[in-house]
Amino acid sequence: MRRVVCMFFILLMSFVSVSAQQNQDSLMIKRISDEIFMNGKAYENLRFLCKKVGPRLSGSAGAALAVEQTARMLREAGADTVYLQPCMVPRWERGAKEIGRASLNNGQTMPLNIVALGNAVGTPVGGISAQVIEVKSFKELEALGADKVKGKIIFYNYRMDPRFISTFAAYGDAGVYRSSGPSRAAALGAVAVIVRTLSPVLDDNPHTGATKYEEGKPKIPAVAISTNGAVELSKAIADGKIGSVYLKTNCKMLEDVLSYNVIGEIRGAEVPAEVITVGGHLDSWDLAEGAHDDGTGCMQSIEIIRAMKALAIRPKRTIRAVMFMNEENGLRGGTKYGEVAKTENKKFIMAMESDAGGFTPRGFGFSADARQKAKIMSWKPLFHPYGALEFNEGGGGADIGPLRPLGTALIGLNPDSQRYMDLHHARTDVFEAVSERELNLGTVVMAAMVYLVSQYGL
Amino acid sequence: MRRVVCMFFILLMSFVSVSAQQNQDSLMIKRISDEIFMNGKAYENLRFLCKKVGPRLSGSAGAALAVEQTARMLREAGADTVYLQPCMVPRWERGAKEIGRASLNNGQTMPLNIVALGNAVGTPVGGISAQVIEVKSFKELEALGADKVKGKIIFYNYRMDPRFISTFAAYGDAGVYRSSGPSRAAALGAVAVIVRTLSPVLDDNPHTGATKYEEGKPKIPAVAISTNGAVELSKAIADGKIGSVYLKTNCKMLEDVLSYNVIGEIRGAEVPAEVITVGGHLDSWDLAEGAHDDGTGCMQSIEIIRAMKALAIRPKRTIRAVMFMNEENGLRGGTKYGEVAKTENKKFIMAMESDAGGFTPRGFGFSADARQKAKIMSWKPLFHPYGALEFNEGGGGADIGPLRPLGTALIGLNPDSQRYMDLHHARTDVFEAVSERELNLGTVVMAAMVYLVSQYGL
Repeated sequence: MRRVVCMFFILLMSFVSVSAQQNQDSLMIKRISDEIFMNGKAYENLRFLCKKVGPRLSGSAGAALAVEQTARMLREAGADTVYLQPCMVPRWERGAKEIGRASLNNGQTMPLNIVALGNAVGTPVGGISAQVIEVKSFKELEALGADKVKGKIIFYNYRMDPRFISTFAAYGDAGVYRSSGPSRAAALGAVAVIVRTLSPVLDDNPHTGATKYEEGKPKIPAVAISTNGAVELSKAIADGKIGSVYLKTNCKMLEDVLSYNVIGEIRGAEVPAEVITVGGHLDSWDLAEGAHDDGTGCMQSIEIIRAMKALAIRPKRTIRAVMFMNEENGLRGGTKYGEVAKTENKKFIMAMESDAGGFTPRGFGFSADARQKAKIMSWKPLFHPYGALEFNEGGGGADIGPLRPLGTALIGLNPDSQRYMDLHHARTDVFEAVSERELNLGTVVMAAMVYLVSQYGL
Repeated sequence: MRRVVCMFFILLMSFVSVSAQQNQDSLMIKRISDEIFMNGKAYENLRFLCKKVGPRLSGSAGAALAVEQTARMLREAGADTVYLQPCMVPRWERGAKEIGRASLNNGQTMPLNIVALGNAVGTPVGGISAQVIEVKSFKELEALGADKVKGKIIFYNYRMDPRFISTFAAYGDAGVYRSSGPSRAAALGAVAVIVRTLSPVLDDNPHTGATKYEEGKPKIPAVAISTNGAVELSKAIADGKIGSVYLKTNCKMLEDVLSYNVIGEIRGAEVPAEVITVGGHLDSWDLAEGAHDDGTGCMQSIEIIRAMKALAIRPKRTIRAVMFMNEENGLRGGTKYGEVAKTENKKFIMAMESDAGGFTPRGFGFSADARQKAKIMSWKPLFHPYGALEFNEGGGGADIGPLRPLGTALIGLNPDSQRYMDLHHARTDVFEAVSERELNLGTVVMAAMVYLVSQYGL
């Protein structure tokens, strides 16, 4: 009996102590939240990044300016140390505006609203003119066979499936046509591909994004067509109106150039050798301002540094805000960061990435071992007041992926996904599409997680 | 032992049966979701309501057209019965564009970006010219006392508090200056009030909304000033630049006119006398298209009828989609619906309202008795795939409030609130501010709840 009573007291005390601790944490998170909502700089910094820097594809002048300016923002945020981590990046250039048109059998032409896919080769100087064949799937493509595909332009008209609740799931489902479509068509002798834009809305904005040529297959030109354009082209094909299609793209891959990850750090007050990484990617596609992709993730990461400094929080462990270079078409920055991490005499305990838009946060996805996960899950109630209720298995981010083999727990911020694919990689991904409150709320839950890991480790 | 085993089997079987049932429900909800995302009409109907009908303040020609057009939409959605429920509504008119300006001591004038508050009286034909006094709170107002307030224009410059995570909480906190500010200032002899717009963003869009004159107090003119305008005016006052302020508003309350709630119904196949009400309000402020407030709630309610009919679902209980008239400045439609409900020989088991914007759904708020709540809570896991995770105590909607005394369980859809107050009652509340996917996802969770109540009662 005495033992039972004793056990009871031990349990009770540990409960009280957990409660008291969580209450302290809850108050600190509220202070962080108030600081971000009252004095946050992420939104104004984002305005600067979008409007004064603008597009910043790896290797471009915009990317170089972005490196310089985010280093400044990190210094202004009060980071103890700000430095650049060199890495070589690919340099792909779109060149002059693409031309696409279909010659109709009635002698007229129909303009095609296209953009080249990222990393794609350009057409010959005179362009490419060929018959077009529409397929809805790889299965349809394979069924045609080399005889019918040879010399043709393949039009992948796979509609992004609106039935997925997560638009990232729909993106994963449809994205294979953008990534693998060119090589799979080339393997059958196609001369170019047109891929329907990966967007759930019907509009006139073609979305770019990287394609990936398979080793040993011919590299053929590849473009995205706007969703409205895809519908129109499909109809014209079905009506037997199309004679041939002409494509002219001017893109090319140049030599690698030197670029940088931008890093700002608060040195841990007690365990400085344990490092928490929080970041987004600094490069963006060339068509827009890269507001949601991924200006927001970068600005949120800088804001975490700023808020901690403004509140004079001295984290026990080191916190690093990292602007990764070249996520979009090479992942060289993330790869370099992982390589360097291996050589540093430090423990990379947790890495978080925000690269799913600056929308209202719904929660996090985790790639971590069981003990790390259990600790993270014990903090879940602290996120309830901020609506970050979904703590899911799986997740992280492309740039922080290379840290996982070091035992680093990876955490991806999961914002609401409904609007993301409307503007992803399109000219509509601009500052005006970001809500200041949504951006700040995302920062709050990121900062809360970073704070907890910095205090308690993982 | 046998009894224990027996109990175990009973428990097991009931678990299996609940599981099997929930599995069936889960499949049906997925079918509803797919139907709404694949073939939904809410977005195109909303476009029509916003662009072809437009503003529809109670008693206006727009409101009359909205009645006619939503009745058509309900018929096209396949409702078994569509009818209009007459009710008298107030008719307030803004009249010609308001004029506001401050005369500066240097002889110049500063224009004030204002709109009259809804239900407010207008100024005399010649306008009102008076000294302006800024207060940040009622406490500051009362401290001034009648001596200082008499004959003056009171400028309530209370900033909406960004620290609230729910913008509805911030709205509740700041909204008292719009609703009670005029009468409280008038009680001390003020001649007019200027209220800072209820918005978390700094911009040039004044937001209107109803004010409420207190019985027995003088009715004085009342306007909202844009947030940027409030900041500018406050600074000019602090700098001692302002001589006097001139306000001219042309609004007035006219005689009540006949209008309607619009009702479309699917008759219950098994228990038709049990009625589920689902609705939004059809009236909107006169400054904008009333997209989020509350075109979306109306279009979602119609879409529930359409989706059920398209899927040939025959609900056991009666489902009524109701477009309530006059939520904004009188609540006459909701009141009338409640009055008529009392006289109908029916049981109003549940009423749901969507009047918090067409944003991604976060969950529901409930005003219901313990048994009703327990049943609703048992369905919560079914909503998990759709991200509607927050099932909270309290909620419903202004229009369905009058049903609560009948024992009706009230359910309010709670969408994400971050962007709502940016455009609420402002000219920016337009169709373009609505995301088709967010709108549809809201409809899905509403339809799921309506479906479950229609099958199992409450």
